Amino acid sequence: MQTIQEYIAQHKQRFIDELIDLLKIPSVSADPAYNQDVLNTADAVKASLEKAGCDKVEICETPGYPIVYGEKIIDPALPTVLVYGHYDVQPADPIDLWDAPPFDPVIKKTDIHPEGAIFARGACDDKGQMYMHVKALEYMTQNGQLPCNVKFMIEGEEEVGSESLAWFVPKNKEKLANDVILISDTGMIANDIPSITTGLRGLSYVEVEVTGPNRDLHSGLYGGAVANPINVLTKMISSLHDENNHITIPGFYDKVEELSKEERAEMAKAPFSLEAYKNALDIDDVYGEAGYSTNERNSIRPTLDVNGIWGGYTGEGAKTVIASKAYAKISMRLVPNQEWEEITELFKKHFESIAPAGVRVKVTPHHGGQGYVTPIDNIGYQAASKAYQETFGVTPIPQRSGGSIPIVSLFEQELKSKTILMGFGLNSDAIHSPNEHFGVWNYLKGIETIPFFYRYFSELSEKA
Amino acid sequence: MQTIQEYIAQHKQRFIDELIDLLKIPSVSADPAYNQDVLNTADAVKASLEKAGCDKVEICETPGYPIVYGEKIIDPALPTVLVYGHYDVQPADPIDLWDAPPFDPVIKKTDIHPEGAIFARGACDDKGQMYMHVKALEYMTQNGQLPCNVKFMIEGEEEVGSESLAWFVPKNKEKLANDVILISDTGMIANDIPSITTGLRGLSYVEVEVTGPNRDLHSGLYGGAVANPINVLTKMISSLHDENNHITIPGFYDKVEELSKEERAEMAKAPFSLEAYKNALDIDDVYGEAGYSTNERNSIRPTLDVNGIWGGYTGEGAKTVIASKAYAKISMRLVPNQEWEEITELFKKHFESIAPAGVRVKVTPHHGGQGYVTPIDNIGYQAASKAYQETFGVTPIPQRSGGSIPIVSLFEQELKSKTILMGFGLNSDAIHSPNEHFGVWNYLKGIETIPFFYRYFSELSEKA
Repeated sequence: MQTIQEYIAQHKQRFIDELIDLLKIPSVSADPAYNQDVLNTADAVKASLEKAGCDKVEICETPGYPIVYGEKIIDPALPTVLVYGHYDVQPADPIDLWDAPPFDPVIKKTDIHPEGAIFARGACDDKGQMYMHVKALEYMTQNGQLPCNVKFMIEGEEEVGSESLAWFVPKNKEKLANDVILISDTGMIANDIPSITTGLRGLSYVEVEVTGPNRDLHSGLYGGAVANPINVLTKMISSLHDENNHITIPGFYDKVEELSKEERAEMAKAPFSLEAYKNALDIDDVYGEAGYSTNERNSIRPTLDVNGIWGGYTGEGAKTVIASKAYAKISMRLVPNQEWEEITELFKKHFESIAPAGVRVKVTPHHGGQGYVTPIDNIGYQAASKAYQETFGVTPIPQRSGGSIPIVSLFEQELKSKTILMGFGLNSDAIHSPNEHFGVWNYLKGIETIPFFYRYFSELSEKA
Repeated sequence: MQTIQEYIAQHKQRFIDELIDLLKIPSVSADPAYNQDVLNTADAVKASLEKAGCDKVEICETPGYPIVYGEKIIDPALPTVLVYGHYDVQPADPIDLWDAPPFDPVIKKTDIHPEGAIFARGACDDKGQMYMHVKALEYMTQNGQLPCNVKFMIEGEEEVGSESLAWFVPKNKEKLANDVILISDTGMIANDIPSITTGLRGLSYVEVEVTGPNRDLHSGLYGGAVANPINVLTKMISSLHDENNHITIPGFYDKVEELSKEERAEMAKAPFSLEAYKNALDIDDVYGEAGYSTNERNSIRPTLDVNGIWGGYTGEGAKTVIASKAYAKISMRLVPNQEWEEITELFKKHFESIAPAGVRVKVTPHHGGQGYVTPIDNIGYQAASKAYQETFGVTPIPQRSGGSIPIVSLFEQELKSKTILMGFGLNSDAIHSPNEHFGVWNYLKGIETIPFFYRYFSELSEKA
């Protein structure tokens, strides 16, 4: 029997090659053009789980993209770990900002990743982090190191709202029964400062459409005399924040969890350099809600951001037109206790109410999800913490993330179990951006750490 | 010798067919993809002028698209009419809103055009109206009815700012010497209410770019903590109008010509139905600067409109991204006495000054032009008025237009002559919009009216 370190040393290149093959399939769930690629990725994941030692693997059909389910039950009396991940990826555009094609992975060294990083859409979010669990399982089964039962549930719609998962989970509570849910779809502070995400923000994502005149108009003949949908849209959007960057939607903050001075002081201890942060983004200053630090603004506070806006003539040169319609995609990050459906309703009601005469407004909810918090006295968290101590040599810092994994609160509600977020990515990995990448060191360190989680979780479960 | 009415009755179908051939060439000057089509259109215009009876026609090279020049000098002692028009057209997008392909002309009847209208990009603006002059010349030369000299100057960059024309005119004052400039690139109130445009608005067209972080960011990890260029752009744009829809750029109104009560009362006499206006556009209310009527807002008052805006993810579905950049195309319609270069500078200075920390702003001027007014006691105006009385049976109404033909003020400055704007289009012709069209009746009525202008202008010039 080999140690995980020995096993990685021996199979390192194959682990990297297998991930690269997976990254070559453009599984963009948001764009119907990639439909077949998304389906092919599900098949590839199924095959990888079978190879890794699952007894039973199946492609579960859903109203949308299938969910890949796999399991290895060694003894029903033992605890069960449910691994969740997703095989779909964000759209790659703007393509022209990538240094290399997004679905033709290359390994390049960077300052933060001296051992090289794999550059490709989905490298970190989430194919790379999901695949760490497949390879960790391979090690445990090959070396008789699997101390408990394991189930995998890998979905294909995380980047578009996990609707089919929300349909699938309630129907399969038996199949999915578990003692803890393990997810690697978040990040850590730095390679020498491991952290475990204990909180996630919720999300409400909407699309708005402002319609003015029934056709595009000549801006000379009609300019100044009719409501210009683009001008109106900018006025409506800008009114959603006040001068302190508080969100102006009535009732928006009613249920926001306010952290105590102590909790905020605890957060403030996480190492953070505002200068390094600004330099990394090439901005002269940060920006956000008055009265909160940068790390608070992007974790414990709700936000409203326009993710896309379009209308009128956007081609080369000049066109003197007043567009008939203008559009925006707007998302709100929510904190624990904010109900995403309720916030979506509040937004819709408010946005429609501020439309001036002369335009019609349509608000279309895209998707959303609840925020989430894991208590650090939970044995799942304890097991993860010990696993990191084993492989990083330091105790990981519990950290609130600004991101959202809407299904985590769904799991708690439907499966009655807590989720442990062991993320091995870094903020600088550019997930959702051009040149997304995942450090080779991080990938292998994840594979190394995961088996220890299984060991300590099993031990702590016995004691419990 | 035939009367113009007889000549039209005989050649009507050919006149329509020739225009349709011209409309089939997609001469979109704003889009380099159509470069060859624009050049081919210049050649087609040259051929048509030769056929119509010009003695000398040439393609004059410029730094941009060529200017087609043609002339027929019957006696240097006689007055000379300079006809200006343009052979380029606006971009056709949004293509999908056209009922028929924009460059595959069709004739369809409409309520306003019971005798049919030609649907195609450029049908009215300006190929159709320009070609009326070519056919009127053909009649006059074929029937010995040309009472004076005529020159044609047809350019290919009117829709993108006429830069090459501004370069060409000062270099060719001799060649272009004239007693009056005749342009059909405007509209009239209705087929039974002819009007002549006596005023035009100026234009300043700029493109703005707001840059935040140096790459697209995950809105969960950075949302609320960095300036979102799209949110910032909407705030900046919306601040350009106050609650009364006055433009907030310092100095913007300093030189605006304020009309007297009497002039405004005179304007108010032009027949106008607010209900019909709203119904035609399918809007529940009009919108604009407080204290002014709809017809004042779109003619004697300056305006600021966003003509296009884009940034972030605009594809299908949802992408939770904070874009690195956001863009907008913004145009300002100016009134007589406002200097367009000065207004462009004021905009640039102001827009840059309101950029918040955390973003960088770039303002790129596209093009512009001065406003213009023609006094109605001018003999050119008088000749046009008599020509309309001859063919419409009523006296045309002098009217200020909200549109801009920047080069008109250039002509006055460089060639020292006044411009007469004999427009035969209607506001409902959807110029710059999908389904642009030009009434067959209007096209033929223009051809019928123009020769009378030549006759009366020559007569009035003798007397003068």
